[in-house]
Amino acid sequence: MPSHDPGTNVGPPAAPLSGARRRLLDAASGPLHPVARDTLVAAVSAGWADPDRLHAEGRTARALLDRSREVVASGLGVRPSEVSFLPSGPTALERALDGVRYAARRRGARTVASAVEHSAVLVPARARAARAAGADGADGADGADLLAEVPVDRLGRLDLDAWQHELTQPGTVVAALQSANGEVGTRQPLEGAHAAARAHGIPLVVDAMASLGRDAVPEAWDVLVGDARSWGGPPLGVLVVREGVRWQWSGARADVEHGRTDVGPWVPLALAAAEAWQQARATSVADAALTRALVADVREAAARVPDTVVVGDPDDRLPHVVTFSSLYVDGETVVGALDRQGYAVASGSACTSSTLEPSHVLAAMGVLTHGNVRVTLPLPAVSPTVAQDVADLCEAIAPTVAAVRSELGVGDL
Amino acid sequence: MPSHDPGTNVGPPAAPLSGARRRLLDAASGPLHPVARDTLVAAVSAGWADPDRLHAEGRTARALLDRSREVVASGLGVRPSEVSFLPSGPTALERALDGVRYAARRRGARTVASAVEHSAVLVPARARAARAAGADGADGADGADLLAEVPVDRLGRLDLDAWQHELTQPGTVVAALQSANGEVGTRQPLEGAHAAARAHGIPLVVDAMASLGRDAVPEAWDVLVGDARSWGGPPLGVLVVREGVRWQWSGARADVEHGRTDVGPWVPLALAAAEAWQQARATSVADAALTRALVADVREAAARVPDTVVVGDPDDRLPHVVTFSSLYVDGETVVGALDRQGYAVASGSACTSSTLEPSHVLAAMGVLTHGNVRVTLPLPAVSPTVAQDVADLCEAIAPTVAAVRSELGVGDL
Repeated sequence: MPSHDPGTNVGPPAAPLSGARRRLLDAASGPLHPVARDTLVAAVSAGWADPDRLHAEGRTARALLDRSREVVASGLGVRPSEVSFLPSGPTALERALDGVRYAARRRGARTVASAVEHSAVLVPARARAARAAGADGADGADGADLLAEVPVDRLGRLDLDAWQHELTQPGTVVAALQSANGEVGTRQPLEGAHAAARAHGIPLVVDAMASLGRDAVPEAWDVLVGDARSWGGPPLGVLVVREGVRWQWSGARADVEHGRTDVGPWVPLALAAAEAWQQARATSVADAALTRALVADVREAAARVPDTVVVGDPDDRLPHVVTFSSLYVDGETVVGALDRQGYAVASGSACTSSTLEPSHVLAAMGVLTHGNVRVTLPLPAVSPTVAQDVADLCEAIAPTVAAVRSELGVGDL
Repeated sequence: MPSHDPGTNVGPPAAPLSGARRRLLDAASGPLHPVARDTLVAAVSAGWADPDRLHAEGRTARALLDRSREVVASGLGVRPSEVSFLPSGPTALERALDGVRYAARRRGARTVASAVEHSAVLVPARARAARAAGADGADGADGADLLAEVPVDRLGRLDLDAWQHELTQPGTVVAALQSANGEVGTRQPLEGAHAAARAHGIPLVVDAMASLGRDAVPEAWDVLVGDARSWGGPPLGVLVVREGVRWQWSGARADVEHGRTDVGPWVPLALAAAEAWQQARATSVADAALTRALVADVREAAARVPDTVVVGDPDDRLPHVVTFSSLYVDGETVVGALDRQGYAVASGSACTSSTLEPSHVLAAMGVLTHGNVRVTLPLPAVSPTVAQDVADLCEAIAPTVAAVRSELGVGDL
């Protein structure tokens, strides 16, 4: 019997982007590493089974899942039992904090986090604080009992003194800090922040969703969170709970991913994530050097545009991320103008939650929150033309911003 | 620069299952429909971008995601705005209940569910009931204020009188019933259950994770949950909230999947799910007729084995699922013996939570809970040899059970 009628096929449209040369400079959620893509395709055929099944297909899937976990654990310098796969990085980050808070629920519920953390940290914590203050939409004056947002300087770097002060406040049970900011690239002082948290017996959750696979693996943390997208994998959350850290999830079912999620990952995604990790690590030194130099070029080119600031730390930063902001224009318009010339770049907050728009990161830094353009360079293996693409972008920035301003009638300001 | 060293590749192992002829008779989490697999592979290259991005790649991803939602909505006879994609079916099911309970939190928190619901319904509800009763591990005497598990008959079918009685109890805010049981196949009396719930103003959450794509689409529900695995897609949860139903998630971010999850789906998975849906629907009548007849063959063959019962309703059932239980053996051993002969079948509870093992479904039905073997037939397009595979299985059941009993020294009992 015919298995299907091709006329009913959904898609996708054939090669929708062919025709124009595209320059992929928004790798926050980018294409897969080509080797990971091949592994994913192979695993869809070889590793589709439920790894809890007893038959040969289930055992194969189990072996592939175990191997995926070992690869990621080994790369992070941890034990496989410390690593769980969750549906997404942001889900893993929210779960990371929930688990520390739940385990400490008899001692308090207060979270200390930098003001530039991911929305998966800030939005739920703010919502809880608002509810505690009496009602949704309350001014949150009492919310300080549940959430302290520690300020950053104009480069986006944590104020360590304020951090230390907040850690001393009663009821504090968890601290959250990113390894580096995914929007502006600035690295955070993890070691100092961790030492301070440890001095008060407070576990530190480190969000490494922007840095893993692109920058050195952080060592100063109690709970670590990553997203395979940052290293050329598919969306997949990685939650690492250091042995000995008090962590418990209220919804835990002990047999799934060490009790840290309700449903295990689809094995092909886990294997593709591990493959991408392996590939990214194999070329990480050269990749970081190349992208660091390319980002420096973008920073220079953007800084030459009138009334434009390049934000974030120019040196102590992620190798592959840069944001600049131009007065008088909005970022969406510049992104659209660059898109029409073949450039895929981003604007606005790195988090997808509209509740934090305009960028809470730029606002916390005290810099221009509109007119910003964010470039996230793909791994060279993902986009072998990245160096030429960046060179082209450097030529395009100034005339594009000028053209947008001119259209808005602000070209002469 | 070389993008990678092939020596570092993770895998997967080439064709790990070639060599022996395999008969896939455990499709609860089966291989993808071949057209869906092709669509997934194409979408990994064409639809990888974040659909919230403004550039051409983002807009393509958005269009593919919109199309996926329209296909699924159209097949279910609902509006696209009523459909959300979640990381997995069980996650969607738990969220479905949470959303109704949260919206009704001022009126109560009691759940009425059949005793054979998925663990994603029962485990969290039991945990809440246990906590309310004073402590984890309490006997749950007070838990009845939060959860009523309505009994089923020996075929696994809901006791409608008991259901109606439980709905009248104070504080009841949500009812949960599966369209059909994924372990024994018995269909549930959705229309009567829905009418009763509606009479008390209580929304009915219908878990259609075992039936969608294989049996008629349920119509009697307020919130519907599916899992693309049941129709040959990848793991992906589908949560449908009928317009007008009071539903709210405490963690909602309004811009993601209509405020019903924290992170949107990976577009390639959504598109593959929609493709599989389209394909499965195109052949659903013929597929259901074929698998219904094949399951009848398995039921007959199993019933001929001494001291073996075939459970579930023989007629008013899913077309593609059957469970039988043999005295004196355990299911894992039979599964292993069949596996060595090339058959992939399952045993134990359809849910993966070990906290409900041995099968809470069989226990609630009052039938033998050990020695059970579950067959879930794949779509014929997924496994074109399914008819021959079933014919072979029918020959293999009796000698396999006999051999296992003989090894255990219980062959003469």
